[in-house]
Order: sequence, then structure tokens, then C-alpha cells
Amino acid sequence: MKTLAITMGDPAGIGPELCIQFCQQPSDVTYIIYGNTTILERVAQELDLSLEGIHIKDHPMPDADTIVPGQVQAACGQAAYDFLTSAITDAQQGVVDGIITCPLNKAALEQAGIDYPGHTEILVEQTETEAHAMMLGGPELSCSLVTTHIGLADVPSSLTTERIIEVAHLSADLMQLRHERPARLAVLGLNPHAGEGGLFGNQEEERIIQPAIDTLRSEGLSVIGPLPPDTAFLKPIREQVDAYICMYHDQGLIPLKTLCFDEGVNITLGLPIIRTSVDHGTAFDLAWQGRAQLTSLQAAANYARSLLSS
Amino acid sequence: MKTLAITMGDPAGIGPELCIQFCQQPSDVTYIIYGNTTILERVAQELDLSLEGIHIKDHPMPDADTIVPGQVQAACGQAAYDFLTSAITDAQQGVVDGIITCPLNKAALEQAGIDYPGHTEILVEQTETEAHAMMLGGPELSCSLVTTHIGLADVPSSLTTERIIEVAHLSADLMQLRHERPARLAVLGLNPHAGEGGLFGNQEEERIIQPAIDTLRSEGLSVIGPLPPDTAFLKPIREQVDAYICMYHDQGLIPLKTLCFDEGVNITLGLPIIRTSVDHGTAFDLAWQGRAQLTSLQAAANYARSLLSS
Repeated sequence: MKTLAITMGDPAGIGPELCIQFCQQPSDVTYIIYGNTTILERVAQELDLSLEGIHIKDHPMPDADTIVPGQVQAACGQAAYDFLTSAITDAQQGVVDGIITCPLNKAALEQAGIDYPGHTEILVEQTETEAHAMMLGGPELSCSLVTTHIGLADVPSSLTTERIIEVAHLSADLMQLRHERPARLAVLGLNPHAGEGGLFGNQEEERIIQPAIDTLRSEGLSVIGPLPPDTAFLKPIREQVDAYICMYHDQGLIPLKTLCFDEGVNITLGLPIIRTSVDHGTAFDLAWQGRAQLTSLQAAANYARSLLSS
Repeated sequence: MKTLAITMGDPAGIGPELCIQFCQQPSDVTYIIYGNTTILERVAQELDLSLEGIHIKDHPMPDADTIVPGQVQAACGQAAYDFLTSAITDAQQGVVDGIITCPLNKAALEQAGIDYPGHTEILVEQTETEAHAMMLGGPELSCSLVTTHIGLADVPSSLTTERIIEVAHLSADLMQLRHERPARLAVLGLNPHAGEGGLFGNQEEERIIQPAIDTLRSEGLSVIGPLPPDTAFLKPIREQVDAYICMYHDQGLIPLKTLCFDEGVNITLGLPIIRTSVDHGTAFDLAWQGRAQLTSLQAAANYARSLLSS
């Protein structure tokens, strides 16, 4: 049976209760929680849940019995980091077949003296990955981002033909793995109506995006575009596209979140290991109360399972 | 009974058949087609439709019996312009209570020597409107655009606090008319996560958008924002918002078209007359074949009706 690691994330957030609730469900995959048993026991007791039959890889954590839910704590930042690095090592060594991550808290990481903005940077560094990209996936569509967390003003000057090709390659590889057939990609334009033949914008479509599409096609890939962004996500087009190559954060995330609500999954393309993540934060205001929704973790697990070779 | 004009648009496009099919339906509003009877008769004969009981305001058109469907023709550009200006005059004089427009063809307008990019500019000039804006409406949401048909690179430098306030005022006025109660507005951020406290972008949220929101609130308007664009269109938020004030074309049109498919309606805010438009073009490749979908004209008419005072 295939095995997937689920990292517990920040112990003071909603990660622990999601892990417990998720792992109580029957499954054809073995899930192992990479976390801390004391915390899981405390949360289980608080919410009247059972840990019976659940697989836990326990990691030591000082003060696990005095951690307060819903607060930024250095010990929690350190623990979340330890769970993740342990899961990465096990995935690299084949102990698990992939990783699903619950949310970290950046402020807690910082308090612990761990200087990474988030999961992705830790994964990339520990696996010595070079080319990588962020993809958001949902039941209705998958969107890869050519640029991510930069200001809108910096997007046009950050686009390069090379980067679009790179993100398309990474996306095609994942979609091939997922669907076990050649991927069908759609590349978005940058400007309204994809520039309408150079009428709007600085011909980014003609200068930067079209050459990337030409190269990808010359390699034998199935690619449409540059698509006018506003009509690109209509259902008849979505049904023909495995992955959208989006020029900027909100171009991909607006349609994804609008259509997929809380079923969005964050995927790091380019890693040598399978990794998907929930698409929400630690939600400190809900922590340890049993009110957190399992939808995103369920979606992240489903996406990871869809990537396991049969 | 209230009366609405429907302009036939370019005679060689799908406007005539849509007008006929639409006006055959029973309604509690009187619709008058502003068009040419010869063209309508030719289309009706071609598609085995009846003009019985349909109200037509006939406008002379040379060569109406030799016009070819699906082609750019100067006579069609001139005719479409004539139908529109006639409807505008009648709306200004109270002969009709509003206008619904079928699509023009810009190339045909140009061939006729009529130098306007589209409907909006003609409407604005003929009604001597100063402040105006484009809104796209659908059953699920309405989006007003602070900037429209410009390159993405020009968006950040085109945003001003004054223009955001202006578009919000125009939107609030229309929503008050539509819902007969004070409008609830949402103003979008520009950058990913609405800048995340100045982390992404050039603090457009703090410098330009927030001051607009502060002014609007000081006037007593109900306004939320600046919202992170990717989560702004989730259903629980949509249900609390009458109109979204969007910073750029695709920020509003991606969620609108993705959610509302072919039910999008184009509304010109700020005109002294009610005017809604279908959200598609002349579709020359489908013209006079009876294959065009009535959905958008139906939606445009419904939206116009929702604006008529009861």
C-alpha cells in the first residue's frame, strides 16, 4: 500500500485536529501524521476524538503540554519545521511516497529563528531543487503561476519567454504524471483581450508569450494561447485544458478560488518528491475548537493520491 | 406599460435574429426593435420566423435587400449607428424608458466613416455625459472597472483615489436604483493579497485605494476593502456585495465571465438614460443561421428591467 506523510503544521493552529479527523476516515492509502503525540493527545481529548488506529511519527517537542492554542510560539515554529524536514527526508529516502502539508505560521517560524517565508522555500532548499513553480489545483482547474508574490506593477517586466517555457514544462510533467497521457496546456495572455493584436499593452503577447508557445509546440507539446484572460476559464475551455499557465498571481488564483471555493490545493512543481498542501493558513482563531473544515486537506490528499503511480 | 428600445446592431451580424427571437416571447414590458424592417423580414424568412406582433421602429437603409450576412459593410456600420442614435434621442425624450443594445462591428463603423471605437463613446458623446464607467453585471455579481482597455503595465500608474471614488459613486447610484436601498460596495486591492500590508507592490492599497474607501465611508456609504482579489469573489462575500469596484479589466471580468458564462451584461454607468448591452460581438460566422444564443440578450433585458422604477 502507498504511504503519504501528513505534516501536522503549527501545533497551535488547526493542523492537529485536521490531521486526526482526516486520518479517522477509511482509505486505500496509509497516512502517517508527522507531528507530536502529546499535542495530538491533548487536541483529541479537548475535542473528544480518538487516536485509535492512527499512524503517528512522533517528534520530540519541549513544552508540548503547555503549548497554548491560537498563539504565536517559538516552540511551535520549531516543531512545525522539524515535522516538515523529517517528512522531506523520509520522502527522499522512499519511506513515504509523498507529503501533504498542514499550515505553518510564519511569525512562529521567525520567533524560532527559522528564516524561511514558508513551506516552499524549505522544500526547495532541502531537496536542492532548481527550477520550480507554484501551482494551485482544484477539481475544476489547475493554474501554474509564472510570477507569484510580487506587486502587479512588477509583473510585465518580470515575464520572460524562458520562464514561461520552464513553468509550462514543469506543469506538463505533473499533468502527465496525473493523467498518464500527454498534457494539454493553455497559456494566458497578459493584457485585456490578450492585447487584441497589440492594441493594449506593450506587445507582451507577441514579444514574450507567443515565442514561448512556439517553442513548446515545436517540442511536440499540446498548447493553446495566448488566451484572452477573461474568457479563458469558461467551462467549455476548462474541459479541454489540464493546466493553465498564468502570468500573475491573481490571474490564476481569482478563477481558481472563485470556482473551487475551499477545495484549492497548493502544489510545488519541480520538486523531486510529491508534495501538496492545504490552501489555507493556521486559522489561530479556530484552533483546537473542532470548527475547522476538512475540505482543503481532503482535496490536498486527493490531489497527492492522483499523482501516485498506480 | 414601460417601454424599452432594443437596437438591432449590425444588420450583417446576429443582432437581427436575436431581436426577433427575443421579441416573440411574452413580457410585461413593451420592447421596440430599433432597426430596419427589410432586414428583419429577410432574416425572418431565412429562419422561418414570424414578425407578427413585434414592434419595429423602421429606419431607412440603402441596399437593405442586398446586404450579405457575415461581412463587414459600410451600409451596415451606418445603419447600426443610425439605430443607436435614434434610440438615444427617444430615450432622452422619454419615448422609451431605456435602451438595450445588440452588437456593433467596429470595422463596419470605420468603413462608414464613423469614428468611434464602440457604443459607449457614442452614448457618452450624444448624452453629453462626463463621469462614466463600465460595469459588467451578471446574476451572480456586478463588477465596475476603474481602468478598462489599457495594458496591464499601465494599470498601477493609472489608478487615482479620485477615479476610484467616482466609479464607486456611479456604482452606488445604479445599485440604489436596482435594489431600492443603499448599495453595499466592495473595493478590490491591486496586488496579491491586497499587498499584504505593503509587502507586495508599491503600497497602492495604502496610498491610493484606502483613502478612497475612507472618503466613501465618511460620506455614509457601505464599503468593504481593499479586499485580497483572489478571495474577494467567494460566495459568502458575493452574497454581501452589490457591486465590486475592480482596479483593472481582468480583475473584474475573469470572475464575472467564469461565474456567469454567457449571462454577462455590459452597463454604462453615469449615463442619464438606462442602457444595457449584450456581452458578445456580432459573431459574423453565425449570422442569419439561427444558431446564436439568446442568453446574453435575455440577461441584458432582465438587467435593464431591474433598473426601471416600479
